[in-house]
Amino acid sequence: ADDDATAGARRRNAQLTKPPGALGRLEELAIWYAGWRGSDSPAIDAPQIVVFAGNHGVCAQGVSAFPPEVTVQMVANFEHGGAAINQLAKTFGATMHVHALELDRPTADFTQSPAMSEAEFIAALRTGWGAVNPAADLLVPGEMGIGNTTVAAAVGAALFGGIGADWVGRGTGVDDAGLANKARVVDAGLARHASREPLEVLRCLGGRELAAMAGAIAAARAHRIPVILDGFICTAAAAVLEKTRAGALDHCVAGHLSAEGAHGRMLDSLDKVPLLSLGLCLGEGSGGAAAIGVLKAAVACHSGMATFAEAGVSDG
Amino acid sequence: ADDDATAGARRRNAQLTKPPGALGRLEELAIWYAGWRGSDSPAIDAPQIVVFAGNHGVCAQGVSAFPPEVTVQMVANFEHGGAAINQLAKTFGATMHVHALELDRPTADFTQSPAMSEAEFIAALRTGWGAVNPAADLLVPGEMGIGNTTVAAAVGAALFGGIGADWVGRGTGVDDAGLANKARVVDAGLARHASREPLEVLRCLGGRELAAMAGAIAAARAHRIPVILDGFICTAAAAVLEKTRAGALDHCVAGHLSAEGAHGRMLDSLDKVPLLSLGLCLGEGSGGAAAIGVLKAAVACHSGMATFAEAGVSDG
Repeated sequence: ADDDATAGARRRNAQLTKPPGALGRLEELAIWYAGWRGSDSPAIDAPQIVVFAGNHGVCAQGVSAFPPEVTVQMVANFEHGGAAINQLAKTFGATMHVHALELDRPTADFTQSPAMSEAEFIAALRTGWGAVNPAADLLVPGEMGIGNTTVAAAVGAALFGGIGADWVGRGTGVDDAGLANKARVVDAGLARHASREPLEVLRCLGGRELAAMAGAIAAARAHRIPVILDGFICTAAAAVLEKTRAGALDHCVAGHLSAEGAHGRMLDSLDKVPLLSLGLCLGEGSGGAAAIGVLKAAVACHSGMATFAEAGVSDG
Repeated sequence: ADDDATAGARRRNAQLTKPPGALGRLEELAIWYAGWRGSDSPAIDAPQIVVFAGNHGVCAQGVSAFPPEVTVQMVANFEHGGAAINQLAKTFGATMHVHALELDRPTADFTQSPAMSEAEFIAALRTGWGAVNPAADLLVPGEMGIGNTTVAAAVGAALFGGIGADWVGRGTGVDDAGLANKARVVDAGLARHASREPLEVLRCLGGRELAAMAGAIAAARAHRIPVILDGFICTAAAAVLEKTRAGALDHCVAGHLSAEGAHGRMLDSLDKVPLLSLGLCLGEGSGGAAAIGVLKAAVACHSGMATFAEAGVSDG
């Protein structure tokens, strides 16, 4: 972040027509955003949502309540404007792009072999990197991929420690037996792949849409584009970057706390406090997109409000 | 609320292209909104923010960190578009109206006599009622009034029980001595005015902007306009209605949890769960307005998403 812009934004914030701190977390959000954009009174005019879709070999282990063909069906739904994320993009004036990542060629079942070869992994990272519009001023990465809460749980367990049961959740709606099966599958993946090097974890236990989100989040950093993280799967992908280099997610804020059980613990480990807590667990970037309004509100107040001097208001 | 529209919205929600419940609280919000609007797929096109300003005789007791002339200065700031609430109105496409309620004639000091005469009280209620545009499809009532966290604390204590110390907070920034003084002033008001009949509480211990908010919230009910409540002061005004008749706030949702300490307890008593919790304590309707985006997101998803049948997606 730009220290001059951060300091300038902090000075501006102190002069706005409100009691000190009365806008609560909106004040810190606006200052953070200003620092990354390099302007002490920035605007959010061009938010971009990018949804990556992938399929997962581990679905052969019966980890999802939905069949894998739903991934490609939902991609069509995104393209026709019928999904939740389309409505959220419209509500908050964001552009939306969808990248389907070789859906007819799922990753390998991670209980048997690495999910991706090195070439496949790098291709997915690159797709994510290239999907970010350098002219965007806010990025919300999202995903779709039947089976990917199991994948994210495996990545979470490998990065942060613990066993499958600590990290799996109901996903799109598995029952108790399904939950136990997910835990077993994650444990099998953890046993199969010994490396805990973060990028190797992502390659062996992750999926193409997770790798693409990591690539997109890294690209946003390079372009100084602040990011709103979505839920459990997005956060697991992002955590790979933070575990690779501390501070790698300083340009990211957590959009929401997912109903997927382990998300809160993962956010705590990353020292991220979610903007919203509304029980969403849809993916697609929906929780991140729902939080665009909060960040827009913060930045609009910061950059649009009059100072005490401008408004002729006594400052106490 | 319209039972047919509620049932129709619930049926529609079950068919949308997402796992059941995956949009969390957004689903219940959309169904609630649909019921009040009498349409199973409604839209939010005309939100209205109304800010009422009043002055308080109790400021003579030294209860605020800011001088009372700030009320009229902030009204000018609202009119010139320089306040936080103006930026939030722009961000979420809301109209904004400001009503200054006899600012040069503050209410009486409630430690000495009733804050308002019956005629003054009724005039303020009527102003609030008349301020609501019947064509609006969402109302956010707000307030400005130096001294009014003390007033709201007195109303809260009289409606819900307890003493001044249970209900006062830092407001715009008083120190420990100021906080103790606010508690003393509330206790003096509670001792002076024995009636606990809710409307009489509002007349004796309240203020013109609180009465106007109560009038506006009641008018919104008559017009079937859903309401997003703001923070401590707005909620205290609204609570008068609920205490007068249980269910009177069924058309209202709590926009946020204020940093003003007693707000959470008041919301709990009203069985309202806030949409946002971002540490705001500004008033003006700012916390309610910040939540407009959440409600817009909920309604947009509900009314805009494709059904499983429309999108050709397998529903598990």
